[in-house]
Amino acid sequence: MPTVREIAESIASITNPELTPAWDPVGLQLGDPDAEVGSIAVCHEVTEGVVANLEEHPVDLLVSYHPLLFAPTTRLLAGRSPGSRSYRLIRAGVSLLVTHTDFDSAPGGTADALAAFFGLRDLSEFGEDPDTGLPAIGRVGEFDGTLGTVDAIVVDAFGPSGLRVTGDRDAIVERLAVVPGSGSVFIEAAAEAGADALVTGDVSHHRTVAAADLGLAVVDPGHTATERPGMQALARMVSEAGGVEVADLTHLDPRTWQ
Amino acid sequence: MPTVREIAESIASITNPELTPAWDPVGLQLGDPDAEVGSIAVCHEVTEGVVANLEEHPVDLLVSYHPLLFAPTTRLLAGRSPGSRSYRLIRAGVSLLVTHTDFDSAPGGTADALAAFFGLRDLSEFGEDPDTGLPAIGRVGEFDGTLGTVDAIVVDAFGPSGLRVTGDRDAIVERLAVVPGSGSVFIEAAAEAGADALVTGDVSHHRTVAAADLGLAVVDPGHTATERPGMQALARMVSEAGGVEVADLTHLDPRTWQ
Amino acid sequence: MPTVREIAESIASITNPELTPAWDPVGLQLGDPDAEVGSIAVCHEVTEGVVANLEEHPVDLLVSYHPLLFAPTTRLLAGRSPGSRSYRLIRAGVSLLVTHTDFDSAPGGTADALAAFFGLRDLSEFGEDPDTGLPAIGRVGEFDGTLGTVDAIVVDAFGPSGLRVTGDRDAIVERLAVVPGSGSVFIEAAAEAGADALVTGDVSHHRTVAAADLGLAVVDPGHTATERPGMQALARMVSEAGGVEVADLTHLDPRTWQ
Amino acid sequence: MPTVREIAESIASITNPELTPAWDPVGLQLGDPDAEVGSIAVCHEVTEGVVANLEEHPVDLLVSYHPLLFAPTTRLLAGRSPGSRSYRLIRAGVSLLVTHTDFDSAPGGTADALAAFFGLRDLSEFGEDPDTGLPAIGRVGEFDGTLGTVDAIVVDAFGPSGLRVTGDRDAIVERLAVVPGSGSVFIEAAAEAGADALVTGDVSHHRTVAAADLGLAVVDPGHTATERPGMQALARMVSEAGGVEVADLTHLDPRTWQ
Amino acid sequence: MPTVREIAESIASITNPELTPAWDPVGLQLGDPDAEVGSIAVCHEVTEGVVANLEEHPVDLLVSYHPLLFAPTTRLLAGRSPGSRSYRLIRAGVSLLVTHTDFDSAPGGTADALAAFFGLRDLSEFGEDPDTGLPAIGRVGEFDGTLGTVDAIVVDAFGPSGLRVTGDRDAIVERLAVVPGSGSVFIEAAAEAGADALVTGDVSHHRTVAAADLGLAVVDPGHTATERPGMQALARMVSEAGGVEVADLTHLDPRTWQ
Amino acid sequence: MPTVREIAESIASITNPELTPAWDPVGLQLGDPDAEVGSIAVCHEVTEGVVANLEEHPVDLLVSYHPLLFAPTTRLLAGRSPGSRSYRLIRAGVSLLVTHTDFDSAPGGTADALAAFFGLRDLSEFGEDPDTGLPAIGRVGEFDGTLGTVDAIVVDAFGPSGLRVTGDRDAIVERLAVVPGSGSVFIEAAAEAGADALVTGDVSHHRTVAAADLGLAVVDPGHTATERPGMQALARMVSEAGGVEVADLTHLDPRTWQ
Repeated sequence: MPTVREIAESIASITNPELTPAWDPVGLQLGDPDAEVGSIAVCHEVTEGVVANLEEHPVDLLVSYHPLLFAPTTRLLAGRSPGSRSYRLIRAGVSLLVTHTDFDSAPGGTADALAAFFGLRDLSEFGEDPDTGLPAIGRVGEFDGTLGTVDAIVVDAFGPSGLRVTGDRDAIVERLAVVPGSGSVFIEAAAEAGADALVTGDVSHHRTVAAADLGLAVVDPGHTATERPGMQALARMVSEAGGVEVADLTHLDPRTWQ
Repeated sequence: MPTVREIAESIASITNPELTPAWDPVGLQLGDPDAEVGSIAVCHEVTEGVVANLEEHPVDLLVSYHPLLFAPTTRLLAGRSPGSRSYRLIRAGVSLLVTHTDFDSAPGGTADALAAFFGLRDLSEFGEDPDTGLPAIGRVGEFDGTLGTVDAIVVDAFGPSGLRVTGDRDAIVERLAVVPGSGSVFIEAAAEAGADALVTGDVSHHRTVAAADLGLAVVDPGHTATERPGMQALARMVSEAGGVEVADLTHLDPRTWQ
Repeated sequence: MPTVREIAESIASITNPELTPAWDPVGLQLGDPDAEVGSIAVCHEVTEGVVANLEEHPVDLLVSYHPLLFAPTTRLLAGRSPGSRSYRLIRAGVSLLVTHTDFDSAPGGTADALAAFFGLRDLSEFGEDPDTGLPAIGRVGEFDGTLGTVDAIVVDAFGPSGLRVTGDRDAIVERLAVVPGSGSVFIEAAAEAGADALVTGDVSHHRTVAAADLGLAVVDPGHTATERPGMQALARMVSEAGGVEVADLTHLDPRTWQ
Repeated sequence: MPTVREIAESIASITNPELTPAWDPVGLQLGDPDAEVGSIAVCHEVTEGVVANLEEHPVDLLVSYHPLLFAPTTRLLAGRSPGSRSYRLIRAGVSLLVTHTDFDSAPGGTADALAAFFGLRDLSEFGEDPDTGLPAIGRVGEFDGTLGTVDAIVVDAFGPSGLRVTGDRDAIVERLAVVPGSGSVFIEAAAEAGADALVTGDVSHHRTVAAADLGLAVVDPGHTATERPGMQALARMVSEAGGVEVADLTHLDPRTWQ
Repeated sequence: MPTVREIAESIASITNPELTPAWDPVGLQLGDPDAEVGSIAVCHEVTEGVVANLEEHPVDLLVSYHPLLFAPTTRLLAGRSPGSRSYRLIRAGVSLLVTHTDFDSAPGGTADALAAFFGLRDLSEFGEDPDTGLPAIGRVGEFDGTLGTVDAIVVDAFGPSGLRVTGDRDAIVERLAVVPGSGSVFIEAAAEAGADALVTGDVSHHRTVAAADLGLAVVDPGHTATERPGMQALARMVSEAGGVEVADLTHLDPRTWQ
Repeated sequence: MPTVREIAESIASITNPELTPAWDPVGLQLGDPDAEVGSIAVCHEVTEGVVANLEEHPVDLLVSYHPLLFAPTTRLLAGRSPGSRSYRLIRAGVSLLVTHTDFDSAPGGTADALAAFFGLRDLSEFGEDPDTGLPAIGRVGEFDGTLGTVDAIVVDAFGPSGLRVTGDRDAIVERLAVVPGSGSVFIEAAAEAGADALVTGDVSHHRTVAAADLGLAVVDPGHTATERPGMQALARMVSEAGGVEVADLTHLDPRTWQ
């Protein structure tokens, strides 16, 4: 049986976490690197539900897209917090591996999967952040349709709840940009890349005004919806790297609103 | 006729802008303090639509809730940007006065109006920011109903579009917190103030998870929706301070999504 | 049986950890605040030896003087590190409570115990750090003897190994200052307090030169030796606060050299 | 007729403003980039006098050497300030283009013109500031004469008022350095470049002492005097770039003292 | 005979150097605090000329208004620099005491002396800097005359060389502000204090424009000229504090220009 | 006779002080660069003893390994401090040259000498600090023996006083790392370089725990003991560079403890 470390290295050979900026704590977060792995689960985020599921059906290794311990801490106490969920995973004997912005930018990762979800063609990358060393997690490509078409694709997949579309639904979208997660910092970069519209999450009011000033429509279906297409790719990658049965918990979208 | 400066001073005697932290550029932004004021307009935000309206129907003084020049600049060029809208107001002979977080915290201002909108009783304040000197712009009070009741009030007023509700709609809400605008930085403060739910805008995914960990439901109807109840109070205050006819453009909600 | 939280609160009522500067992570670090406590251990530092001891003889609560997780972290992985020792304590079901600089400055705490160890009279405090909010952890008082007397007391208790004495052993010491732990930052404060000699740990070469320039002799028996007298007081305090049998592991001095 | 933008681009092809450090707000500051330009004025600095002149004799485009809005601002209010002068230019329909340190360092720009004014030969550059990215705005070259000769040239051109000459007027000056504007930060660089004397403005007492310690004489005829020779070159460049009649207001030296 | 330390303490009892901000290194800079003082010299600044004078006619103590070592240093090497002049004073056996901004703000010090020089009445202070802790070194008071009167007083005392007067010489000056040394940072404070004109040194072009925008005339006779009236007061104070003969070298104005 | 400057340049051609980071004030610190040098002394550190020795037996130039003025200062006053020792050297007519971390990293310098002291073979460098520009001052090489062997070599040379050895004396040491002076910041670098043990000074308790976690034994014989082997090399280098008789005061180890 492979060890936790061996599986981590196998995934790292695809996602290159050594290039990830220091603020994103990818890689092994919890557990025993030398433990043998006979069972794996994959999740979008380590929610209370995911932890409860694993307490009932423990695995040796959990691979999560969102980091569990994002802010460094000196406390891991039972209750309800990232520290508490870490505490419970350790108690349940589950090691935790994170692949986040390294998987965003990896070939076939979250960014590519989101582009494929919209059928974009002639893809190019944008949105590198030289200040933090973040690799490009934006994709822009050719699209056939209107803003209404983009809207319809999103509603079809994720439902209308909480969807925020800024722009004229009849406007032609020839060039569509996508950034998984919180991408509103890349609004200027998307406009410079020639996009007519940007799909991303967590876009505040003042940032949508900035986008409108640049002539860029914005479709915000929620942070996690933009990451969902990548989660199937993640489960597949882990399955191939692990060589053992993988419990796919990525369908548990951590979206908080109903 | 009163001058621009006199009206500004009259409003300042109510909102105390001298207590506003330096990052919020309240007060006179554009125009001639000594000009006489025979006509006034009031708006929520200086949108393209507001500017076009005033270019057709100029007034001497525009009072806006959102600052127009928020980021300090060295450029005012025609096009589409806050600088451009400033340029056009100057060309149209319109002076601009801003009352923003000073009006949030003022008696009867945006925070109080939002609390009244939900019928809160036994109000108390929360959410001072000693680091920046921001006065308390949160209100918390007694409420009768469930999270579904809160939801229904919001939908009734602003429609369902883009509404994001985190929590169980059947849960009892005995204590409701509200923060107009972008209030997610006050999630911990709202929980400490004993709130069961918080109504505010621009709440990102990771902040709603933080709220859920604290047992706090979140209702995000959008940044500007939370400010709308205050806009009527604003128009009233300006009307009383100005002593002249006021064109009320606050119904032009700057919400960018449809 | 009392809970972990109740014992923490009982100790906090003596040591006032709420006054501790943020860089010192005192209080509960690991475990379940609501767990009942039937057995307690007390240690100077959570060494590998202490962890191994507790893995064989688990307790419900460990009280440590030195924090285990001092630098905030996003990783708790088996191996050999503070994160690893945290991981092992959680696996062993041991909650961890830390009382460090709050205990230094508490009545009868580490500073007072070190002063009593040398028989100082007419004690006064020094060494507050207004920049970080650290309470006074230095004590200075009357002493009868020479620097050689101080030296002899130290050798008698801790042996000669690694002892570093700067100054003339025949010099009279009428006023002796003590700071438990790493106190060389307080050399100037000790001299201003009128001390002839200072007992503290971790004193670098250049700091001993600074002390000599100020006419202050320095006795450095090692960081942990200066804390040892306080460990008995700690065990006693925990014993009284816990109301259950306490395994005293403070005799396992974490001194690393032989 | 060319547009404001076209003239700006034409001048930029000579001065390369894209290399200018961010603290210097060169380029278009006010107006409409798409407006057609039938008349142009050129000035040293946008003084009250220049604004009053343009209010009486408006032009489509004003090109200024000194930036008008140097400190970023959120206020443009009538009165007397850079913001007020901006307000008045906008009201008068005048667009504003600035070419400042980019013109200093351009071939034939302010630095070269000042060097030519003193008849320097075998010019070389100095005074790059790698920290801010400022290109070299100092020039040093061969000179025949004494410090008294330099003095006489200055008095002849600008009069004796306010002139400050540090050094022995009989001393031979074989190598003369010049920096237009406020160049006292480059005193060490001028000395390293082998200069016997430096001509620049805004030199404080303590900086002249530093220069004297380095054996460097200093001639300070005032900030704007050192820029005057460049203003003719500026008017010429704008005239060629604009292709329309240019009102040359650069003779209105903004020197404040009499 | 008094010691260096005793004379320093005697002067400190008048000027309160303990209130001086840390950037201004007032107090003893060089020499032996315990040396007896039979001879004293007083100077405006430790120039090369002052050092050469003292090398020929050594004294036990030199009191200087300007600090000699202003920027902290690790080098004292013969040559021409503040370090070199320090080296030479030490070699010559001269101790050095500095009283600078503490003397500016002291009763009868540099600020009061400058106010008296212009015959100001009903004096009040301005120009405290709460950020750095600098006490008020500005004085403002009633004046009878025009800006030309101020000009004439300055020319009469210091000659016309290098004098820079910004404003209309016929304008009435009812309220005159003065700041010895480099006071241009206090232009706004002087305007707020109701001054019509400000006398101070080292005023750059852009600061005079700022003053003109505020309606404040500026008279800049040079940094050291504004300090000259205070130098007689300094010599007197030292003479009284020292109780021995004082060589008054303050007539050696360190002004660098001719 | 060579001048002070010529000898400094001769030594600089070996140690390359121009590469030294700015925090380390190597090179000439005190005296007259143009003075002729007929006599030289070399010391480890400018202690009170060294100064007293030179006051009795003055030399023209003192070369010290430790800087005398390390923290930049504005005060040189008799008493007991680095400033006071500087004052006394100047009074005694002694120029001072420092060669510190430049000599650490030089071929045959302090690092190489410490490696040779332990008979290390197949040396390689480690411990560059890219943040500060410090060149590599660590050496790691092959060693035959146990930690006890390392211990014995140290005791044989420096005595047992104050020696602190962390680790098992029976453990085999095949690869030994050494850093002269305060090298505990390089513990991680030494472990990465494959060392079994590190010899360096000023190692605090918490850093020895970090070393133990990495499996790295630590031998701390005191800061100055680790520099002693290099002092003979220093005296030799100075002797060759100076071409005159050199008084070797490096046997006066500045170690403060007995």
